[in-house]
Amino acid sequence: MTTNSMIQFAADGSCRLSSPTQMPLASAYLWNQKMMVQYNCRGYVTSQFMQPEPAKYSTGPNIEATTFMQPEQPYFSHYPGRFFYLNDVTDQRLYSVPYEPCRVQAQHFEMRCYDRSIQWLIRYGEVEIELTTWLGDDEVVEYWSCQLTNLSAQAKQLKLTPYFTVGYMSWMNQQGDFDAALNTIICQKVTPYQKVEQYFANQHLAEKTFLWADHVPDSWQVNQAGFEGEGGLHNPTALTQAELPRQPAIYQTPVAAMQYAIELAPGQRSECYLFAFGAAKTTAEISKRRQQWANAKAPAIDVSANNQVPFKVTMPSSWLSHQVNHWLFRQVRYHGESNRLTTDPQTRNFLQDALGYCFVAPSQCRSRIITALSQQLSSGQMPDGVLLHPDAKLKYINQVPHTDHCVWLPMLVETYLQETNDYQLLNELVPYADSDQVDSVQNHICGAMDWLDSERDERGLSYIAQGDWCDPMNMVGYQGKGVSAWLTIASGYACQLWANLLAKASQMQLSERYQHLASSFRASFNQHCWDGDWYLRGISDDGTAFGRTADQEGRIFLNPQSFALLAGAADAQQKHCIIAAVKQHLATPYGLQMLAPAFTHMHEHIGRVTQKFSGSAENGSVYNHAAAFYVYALYLAGEGDLAFEYLQQMFPTDCDEDLLRRGQLPVFVPNYYRGAYERYPEHAGRSSQLFNTGSAAWIHRIIVQCLFGFVGNQQGVQLAPQLPSDWQSARLVRKFRGAHFDIHYQRSEEVTAMTLVSSEAEILDQQIIAIEAGKHYQIEVLLPR
Amino acid sequence: MTTNSMIQFAADGSCRLSSPTQMPLASAYLWNQKMMVQYNCRGYVTSQFMQPEPAKYSTGPNIEATTFMQPEQPYFSHYPGRFFYLNDVTDQRLYSVPYEPCRVQAQHFEMRCYDRSIQWLIRYGEVEIELTTWLGDDEVVEYWSCQLTNLSAQAKQLKLTPYFTVGYMSWMNQQGDFDAALNTIICQKVTPYQKVEQYFANQHLAEKTFLWADHVPDSWQVNQAGFEGEGGLHNPTALTQAELPRQPAIYQTPVAAMQYAIELAPGQRSECYLFAFGAAKTTAEISKRRQQWANAKAPAIDVSANNQVPFKVTMPSSWLSHQVNHWLFRQVRYHGESNRLTTDPQTRNFLQDALGYCFVAPSQCRSRIITALSQQLSSGQMPDGVLLHPDAKLKYINQVPHTDHCVWLPMLVETYLQETNDYQLLNELVPYADSDQVDSVQNHICGAMDWLDSERDERGLSYIAQGDWCDPMNMVGYQGKGVSAWLTIASGYACQLWANLLAKASQMQLSERYQHLASSFRASFNQHCWDGDWYLRGISDDGTAFGRTADQEGRIFLNPQSFALLAGAADAQQKHCIIAAVKQHLATPYGLQMLAPAFTHMHEHIGRVTQKFSGSAENGSVYNHAAAFYVYALYLAGEGDLAFEYLQQMFPTDCDEDLLRRGQLPVFVPNYYRGAYERYPEHAGRSSQLFNTGSAAWIHRIIVQCLFGFVGNQQGVQLAPQLPSDWQSARLVRKFRGAHFDIHYQRSEEVTAMTLVSSEAEILDQQIIAIEAGKHYQIEVLLPR
Repeated sequence: MTTNSMIQFAADGSCRLSSPTQMPLASAYLWNQKMMVQYNCRGYVTSQFMQPEPAKYSTGPNIEATTFMQPEQPYFSHYPGRFFYLNDVTDQRLYSVPYEPCRVQAQHFEMRCYDRSIQWLIRYGEVEIELTTWLGDDEVVEYWSCQLTNLSAQAKQLKLTPYFTVGYMSWMNQQGDFDAALNTIICQKVTPYQKVEQYFANQHLAEKTFLWADHVPDSWQVNQAGFEGEGGLHNPTALTQAELPRQPAIYQTPVAAMQYAIELAPGQRSECYLFAFGAAKTTAEISKRRQQWANAKAPAIDVSANNQVPFKVTMPSSWLSHQVNHWLFRQVRYHGESNRLTTDPQTRNFLQDALGYCFVAPSQCRSRIITALSQQLSSGQMPDGVLLHPDAKLKYINQVPHTDHCVWLPMLVETYLQETNDYQLLNELVPYADSDQVDSVQNHICGAMDWLDSERDERGLSYIAQGDWCDPMNMVGYQGKGVSAWLTIASGYACQLWANLLAKASQMQLSERYQHLASSFRASFNQHCWDGDWYLRGISDDGTAFGRTADQEGRIFLNPQSFALLAGAADAQQKHCIIAAVKQHLATPYGLQMLAPAFTHMHEHIGRVTQKFSGSAENGSVYNHAAAFYVYALYLAGEGDLAFEYLQQMFPTDCDEDLLRRGQLPVFVPNYYRGAYERYPEHAGRSSQLFNTGSAAWIHRIIVQCLFGFVGNQQGVQLAPQLPSDWQSARLVRKFRGAHFDIHYQRSEEVTAMTLVSSEAEILDQQIIAIEAGKHYQIEVLLPR
Repeated sequence: MTTNSMIQFAADGSCRLSSPTQMPLASAYLWNQKMMVQYNCRGYVTSQFMQPEPAKYSTGPNIEATTFMQPEQPYFSHYPGRFFYLNDVTDQRLYSVPYEPCRVQAQHFEMRCYDRSIQWLIRYGEVEIELTTWLGDDEVVEYWSCQLTNLSAQAKQLKLTPYFTVGYMSWMNQQGDFDAALNTIICQKVTPYQKVEQYFANQHLAEKTFLWADHVPDSWQVNQAGFEGEGGLHNPTALTQAELPRQPAIYQTPVAAMQYAIELAPGQRSECYLFAFGAAKTTAEISKRRQQWANAKAPAIDVSANNQVPFKVTMPSSWLSHQVNHWLFRQVRYHGESNRLTTDPQTRNFLQDALGYCFVAPSQCRSRIITALSQQLSSGQMPDGVLLHPDAKLKYINQVPHTDHCVWLPMLVETYLQETNDYQLLNELVPYADSDQVDSVQNHICGAMDWLDSERDERGLSYIAQGDWCDPMNMVGYQGKGVSAWLTIASGYACQLWANLLAKASQMQLSERYQHLASSFRASFNQHCWDGDWYLRGISDDGTAFGRTADQEGRIFLNPQSFALLAGAADAQQKHCIIAAVKQHLATPYGLQMLAPAFTHMHEHIGRVTQKFSGSAENGSVYNHAAAFYVYALYLAGEGDLAFEYLQQMFPTDCDEDLLRRGQLPVFVPNYYRGAYERYPEHAGRSSQLFNTGSAAWIHRIIVQCLFGFVGNQQGVQLAPQLPSDWQSARLVRKFRGAHFDIHYQRSEEVTAMTLVSSEAEILDQQIIAIEAGKHYQIEVLLPR
């Protein structure tokens, strides 16, 4: 346990929050193959399932716009929730568990986040309520169990009323009723449509929301307005009466509420009430699934037991160790398994989520590389999104042309090869999206690099079109002239990586070609994009450079600097300047801003990013994905201590005051923290609350490969740790190529250079070679002080 | 005054509601050329303005879907509102005016609806609050004035806190602050977009929401969450403190709240606090408009004073007289002036709203006929929507082909010619949408009738494609074979009307042609659509007839019967059958259902209507627009007493119990009342709360032309009233062709046939001829008992 008072990690890795009001936005998430649910600590719940597009079975009380998952989702009293009202009939008090909507301060509040379940332990009026939720495997169902204990010396008469939001979908198509035969509240809606073809497209949709219970309720209510009455959600009229009114929802907004009268003797513990809530297509399906629901048991709560791939670090900070072992690794799995609940992940995201998945499930990562390349055009261009379902279409931002997707391929393939040494991948034959021709993975990637080469202006700078990484820079080059400094040097980096991989695959001639291409990108970048103290971000259609010393807003962007370091474009002097400039202009107590000073108004030659207010993901925020690249670059440049400083900032902090400010349960790295520190210091650092982020994959890679220095190669593993100089010891346990590694890092007076010691492993220089699958390797790494 | 206890009409025509909780959905509306606002009695407000598409400056707390105006809009605590919190500091009590969100029962509650303003008179804790709202002329601004009176014998310390919802638009683009120089809270958002071209399209959008006040507040708050705190909207944390926290909204959901400390001696009346709330593009614009706001005064409250066109009926029921004089006529004006706040009204709606507008502003009605015809295709086909703005596009249901739009032209032109005798219209030259050719209005309409003729199958029945009137019958004929019985006979009726008009225009040969065409439609209809006791509704692509005696659901549809009567298709025996069948199957205590029994599940050969749940507008509801046609047909068939029975049902009732059930302030005729009476009697009769409806125009026409029998013709006016047989007297005052008519209807023992008496008017048979503009005509109509 840490000593932190508001949030604690238990020995089993679970995270515990002790107050819903100090951190009102704190949330955690669960997922399975078909759905994702985000649980706010107060009882609000955001749930989505795939059919194949993300759909909802529980919504707000008005027609919601269909949109991608939102950061900083604002909650309000009628936000979808799972509330367990508790009437203490004896004391005539009304409570709600976990907290909303009655908002009564509990005698005890504890929210426990496990890998596969979430639990609240609440005490109100000397009654303890244990509320647990988890998801079914591969089906759209949330399970909720609730058990009460009378801690008082008196007998208690209680009424427990679980209230599950169904919500409003269409004025003409909503109703619901209690089905006594199934002991289930079933609500139905019909998705509105106008064109005939939409009817046929909608036919497969699961449009019934159900709440099944294992106990027969004493009374129930499906009409939302009838439940609430004039009392309001915080004091519903229906709960002031002896029983719920038993009203169906006829053409009205439905809710699923059931009521149980429970008498508990002093010290008595109630039966456990089990509920299943989710989406179904037919009543027959609900009837059939009931048996499965009745047998549901909460999953084992030991986090590591649920983790199929042994992975564990031990670091001086137990806080950070918990973060990395349980929650970051879980986030990497989530991205790999769920593809962010989209059928058309942006190609960039898809490739990076796969990069993280290399460390969890290399064979699935391999098939994702092939999926992505099979959607490449024969011109070499990668599509804006990767379609994962036959009915999927490119949506939202994926309908806007972006020019950077090819860049991410070599980074993914490099990671995959480091992890697997599976160079056979390069010979796999894969089709193109627009031709019957099949081609090797190697040729596909060469094509991608050649496409990057072809999309350059006369100066050798890369066209940006309507955007590159950092979507909303959409007006720099929409006329076909504007260029991206970042994309130029990212292309250089990609070509360099690719050349290196080709060399390892003994394709020396090809390697030289991409080596040469990398040089050409670097040269153009250095010739046109160095601004004296750092690199520009780009030059717009009308020839205006931006990200310059002379700019009042958006003076410096992080990404061109990171990739300049990665690509080896910056010489020693430039590197020195960059590191100083980043520290001076972008570093904040809450992490590295992606650009600064944040834009405050529209700059028409740049576009949307400048119209997004200060602190949004792409405008002056601490955008973790961008920050991760800079940290990675610093490690590759041997700046381990500085890198670690920035690395730590990406994680939810272990400082109470900062936790309050960031408002986040530390069970995931958010896509951003608010920035604009120089402008709004009191708002900076706040978490976006969004766990979809490419940074998860990269931070995991950085920890394994840079901090612990565990990098696979063709011989085995190169160990080149860059532990912070004040660390005396550390430990890394991981599975790698089927073998089990347990590596102890130890500072030692007795060595002057890193020394590997192992009785099992074959060691050559600083490598472990001849690794055998199934074997356990115990390694001592002695590090000079 | 009526004696009704919950709702009363005052002498000035205003409507007064005395309880917000008995009729929680009761609402009224105001509009100007640029905006429309619907006010719920409890303080919730739905506002829209045109730029050119309908936009909002005050929304809910999550991303709302963009949709057309919804019937039966469900309210919830965070629904957009204008709340005036009142802290009685002396008594330590918190109230909110009008009612939400504190929901404290007032000592006195009165909501007064005037033609151009709405007022609440509320008493809480011996403080009287007078709250008045009205709209600016031609600008997007709501004015609110608030004045307090201390009715107690003690001095009162009060805090008044107006709270105006701004709402959530985008996670990345919202902020707001108090501008002390302008004494205005200004909140700004940026409409999210993804493609570059959208940026340029959005550039003209007014994206600032402002709240200006004439008094400098003591404190203010713009951060919504900071206002609410843990207390919740019904008991905001910020109101438990001495002052509002003065927080801007930085990247958070904004609200516009100001606070005033007010001390009132016993009996003292406070100053009047004035607020302007609305949308603007720039701060400079707000600054400039302030002067205008400061001078704003609530409009005169006398309803008739605001009515430029004298119109008044006197009937035995003062309730019904008020309905017709003030609120129905106002609703007709609203439709004519606002076009339902859309830039692409459905052609059918546009033509019928113009039909009502004939009685208000004939010259504007004329130009609408020309606008509509200028968008006709040279094939004669009318488009699915009429575009009213250069940037307008066909949206929503207007993208789905419907086949009935041509049918409505002769009804509109007939009404226009009855009102104006302006046969010159028929010679006006109007272009087509798809050719440079111009053609006379007469030829345009001939073309429309010919197009109807051309769209028939070998039986002479009209193809329905993806729908006709009654939009959601979208799968009857999408394969190109299904036919509509209603459209067949509606086409017959249209051709008959057109033939009659051509005869009056002395186009005898053409008239004969359309006479003949009308016969042909009637013959086909009678041959294929009579089902023994009534007419079918249609025959689907696969040859299945529906709307048949043999059907379990959707056995009988009202519209084919109405139009069979109108078109003279039904012989005496058939007419008798129809009237009996409608009474037996469609009549309910709450009006005539459009079809019965309501569908309960999808019937794939019919489509969407069957998927809409029982009681929705098109499925088994009392759809006033459809009911109006049946009433009109009964009048034309001389069934005045029965017609009047059904006519009355379309209006909000004057019976307390029914008002409760229908939940409606009687200031408009809704588009529907819930039906499915046989299935859900306890839900039937409830108002849709939506005042957009073609029935307003038709009910007005029926009252003028059928009930009072005032029908213009080429000589002047034909008087052929069908007053209910138990009426002893009635009166109609109206402007017609520039003259002023005041007609007294009186039952008299002394006449055996209707007798007209007038000292000013020239009377021929039952006509008033040789009408002179500017003249006043006093007419006595003596009716036999």
